[in-house]
Amino acid sequence: MLVTEESCPPAVPGATMPQEPRQTDFQLVRVKSTWCRIKKGEALSNDEDGITLSEAKIGECISEGGISWIIEAPIYFCYKVVETYDILEPSNTTLLWGHITDPQQIELAAASKRKLRRFIVIDEVVDKLYGSKVRAYFQENNVQHKILALPTTEETKSMDLVLNILHEVQKFSLDRRTEPIIAIGGGVCLDIVGLAASLYRRRTPYIRVPTTLLSYVDASVGAKNGVNFLQCKNKLGGYTPPVASFLDRSFIQSIPRRHISNGLGEILKMALMKHKGLFDLLKNHGKYLLDTKFQSCNGLAHHGDAALQTTRIAIETMLEELAPNLWEDDLDRLVDFGHLISPELEMRVLPSLMHGEAVNVDMAFMTYVAHARGLLDAEQKEQILQCMRGLELPVWHSGCSWPLIQRALRERLKHGGGQPRMPLPTGLGVADIFNDTSEETLERAYELWVKDCKPKVTVLPQA
Amino acid sequence: MLVTEESCPPAVPGATMPQEPRQTDFQLVRVKSTWCRIKKGEALSNDEDGITLSEAKIGECISEGGISWIIEAPIYFCYKVVETYDILEPSNTTLLWGHITDPQQIELAAASKRKLRRFIVIDEVVDKLYGSKVRAYFQENNVQHKILALPTTEETKSMDLVLNILHEVQKFSLDRRTEPIIAIGGGVCLDIVGLAASLYRRRTPYIRVPTTLLSYVDASVGAKNGVNFLQCKNKLGGYTPPVASFLDRSFIQSIPRRHISNGLGEILKMALMKHKGLFDLLKNHGKYLLDTKFQSCNGLAHHGDAALQTTRIAIETMLEELAPNLWEDDLDRLVDFGHLISPELEMRVLPSLMHGEAVNVDMAFMTYVAHARGLLDAEQKEQILQCMRGLELPVWHSGCSWPLIQRALRERLKHGGGQPRMPLPTGLGVADIFNDTSEETLERAYELWVKDCKPKVTVLPQA
Repeated sequence: MLVTEESCPPAVPGATMPQEPRQTDFQLVRVKSTWCRIKKGEALSNDEDGITLSEAKIGECISEGGISWIIEAPIYFCYKVVETYDILEPSNTTLLWGHITDPQQIELAAASKRKLRRFIVIDEVVDKLYGSKVRAYFQENNVQHKILALPTTEETKSMDLVLNILHEVQKFSLDRRTEPIIAIGGGVCLDIVGLAASLYRRRTPYIRVPTTLLSYVDASVGAKNGVNFLQCKNKLGGYTPPVASFLDRSFIQSIPRRHISNGLGEILKMALMKHKGLFDLLKNHGKYLLDTKFQSCNGLAHHGDAALQTTRIAIETMLEELAPNLWEDDLDRLVDFGHLISPELEMRVLPSLMHGEAVNVDMAFMTYVAHARGLLDAEQKEQILQCMRGLELPVWHSGCSWPLIQRALRERLKHGGGQPRMPLPTGLGVADIFNDTSEETLERAYELWVKDCKPKVTVLPQA
Repeated sequence: MLVTEESCPPAVPGATMPQEPRQTDFQLVRVKSTWCRIKKGEALSNDEDGITLSEAKIGECISEGGISWIIEAPIYFCYKVVETYDILEPSNTTLLWGHITDPQQIELAAASKRKLRRFIVIDEVVDKLYGSKVRAYFQENNVQHKILALPTTEETKSMDLVLNILHEVQKFSLDRRTEPIIAIGGGVCLDIVGLAASLYRRRTPYIRVPTTLLSYVDASVGAKNGVNFLQCKNKLGGYTPPVASFLDRSFIQSIPRRHISNGLGEILKMALMKHKGLFDLLKNHGKYLLDTKFQSCNGLAHHGDAALQTTRIAIETMLEELAPNLWEDDLDRLVDFGHLISPELEMRVLPSLMHGEAVNVDMAFMTYVAHARGLLDAEQKEQILQCMRGLELPVWHSGCSWPLIQRALRERLKHGGGQPRMPLPTGLGVADIFNDTSEETLERAYELWVKDCKPKVTVLPQA
């Protein structure tokens, strides 16, 4: 492995004749405790026990300028999304052990003499509703715990709040290997705690317990976390997933009806992009889901278990799209549907539109774009709009002007590497991504959208 | 894909007979723009163009409690470590294009009409020495740039400084896809900027240009970044690697002799753990390297190109150990040699010991531990100690008391998941990791170490 003097390229460029660059690719094997490079394809000298081959690679390129090493190393992220019921019942151990996959590890941990310790961050509104149950849960399970109730809103979603949490975490003297931080709240709470945990000791496991419909189907399934910075939404953050998300639909019973619609906006997104069955569920059972706040376990015969099916398909379709693109390296994303114009709109009209509502206004306009492009016929477009109205979502907003749309799409181009990468429905529950929608088509779509949606929809409730 | 009512498990546990959990493993394929789950092993319906198979997997486990999804998704990190010379010569384009691997992309970027833009953070001491060259470099290359000179020391290594940088980055209106942030300085500077860039828009590429010997062989090759928090070293941070590190040895000529020794401490670590050839280089050419500050390109015949070989082997051995364990998931790490006791010692005696010096005191003691365990004979131990003295590194420190060692090893146990995971040399340039060093052995080693090293070494220079 020693670089001999003979094999060294000259240290000064041009000191001798230029050489052709030589590239060698190495794999890495561990023998006992030591990692060694071997040339790619080179057979291992033996297959003794204790020899490990890494998936990491090192390419070495020797040229007259010196050596370049190219390192390629995969990191495997693994996390669980777990449905559970009555998560705050003391007999339900999901919150304590549900993140551990290996049953032996659970046994070991349960048998340990050391008292269990957990640090919990809870949104202060959720704390008012469920705080006493949370405290009782940890007390009855004999867990040493610290519960930190915080206001987690778009306004407080800042690095300051992250550092507040980390002060308390440090005071609690958390063991970063065995004591995951638990976040209980809506999307903002889960995002803030996720960032705090990712930063602490370079990565401390954390658990997400969503308490709103939107976070149940959205923040719970992916890896993203973040805070706002200088009035920019989620400007600082990362992609470290939680060890687990625990989904308990019963929290949803305590959120206002408008927040249910808000969550339904993101569910409808997945339906329109890739799941006709989910679209049919929303079309046929939307009002029932709003009325029952997703609490139907064994609903009326006609509705079957619409709530369970709706949330499951929403989660599954979301996971399908997020898992292969966990760090968003691929810019072509169906899940961006409804998110081309809405960020601009949402920030502009805050707080008049909730996130899922702004997304729906965007989706309504884009449905007209798909229609103007000939991807949807009039009847399909109408079905989509009607479904939106049934979910009590706005299909138009006065803030969504033509100049705002143009500005938002220019911004999109910038972050899309020069392409709009516009997801559009090409039928009910099918979609594709387009880069060639003309200005003329957009304008035609806008005019028809305003004509159809502006006057009626903002005033009249759905028939 | 629609979950039918029949196949749904009961929503309430115990509502019917308990079922055996059913596990199904899914892979993910993309057809056009849509990702779909297919059962593992299931053949793809066709091998049309445009079908992509992801390496991500989703396991689905249906039990009476509901569904659990287990997501496994790899993220491939790729980065370059590039030797270069005269990086600040305007004709050297490494700083502008060296991070791009695809030659076509360089052509595209160079042909673009858009003016190049770069945001540079530079340590203020380095700025005094090289600032005018850095400014001239970007001016002559017609790059719109912002140079932010900051004090980057252990005392200022904080989230505050990270946020200061991010304020300026936001003002500069950086394009997160094409405009990497450049950090020029020692390890602290590279760590702070690395964290700032990792956070900005969830991941902005950054480039490391180390200017000290320690950061040249250490911070430059790995993925770690971080800041101190509440008096704890690197308590907050992450593992996002730079897109590239550019190594120019000429910076090292301007650092004080003691800082060269400091860097040699980390190089000696790699030599002792896994490279006899590197050990011989340090033993035979240590003084020469100190005298010439690693500037020998074509040194005296006797020394060959010791500087080039030493840094190359240090980088290569470090990469071998870091690449397969980029996020430090594996706790058994040879690179931890010298880092079991030194963190405690360094924080306690700050600023009397530099990092590499504290590491060396730790390594000197551990050499006695290896000897006490019978892993090294007396002659090997003596060779190691003599090499350390030749590198002008301290082999003993009054702050490294027996209670401090005990405390540090207890702390190590906590973070090592209950194991000390103690790397020890088992010869010259070979090592292994041990979990069974007895208290009695440690104490015996300590006594001999004090006897051998305490009086002589702190007073007398090496013969």
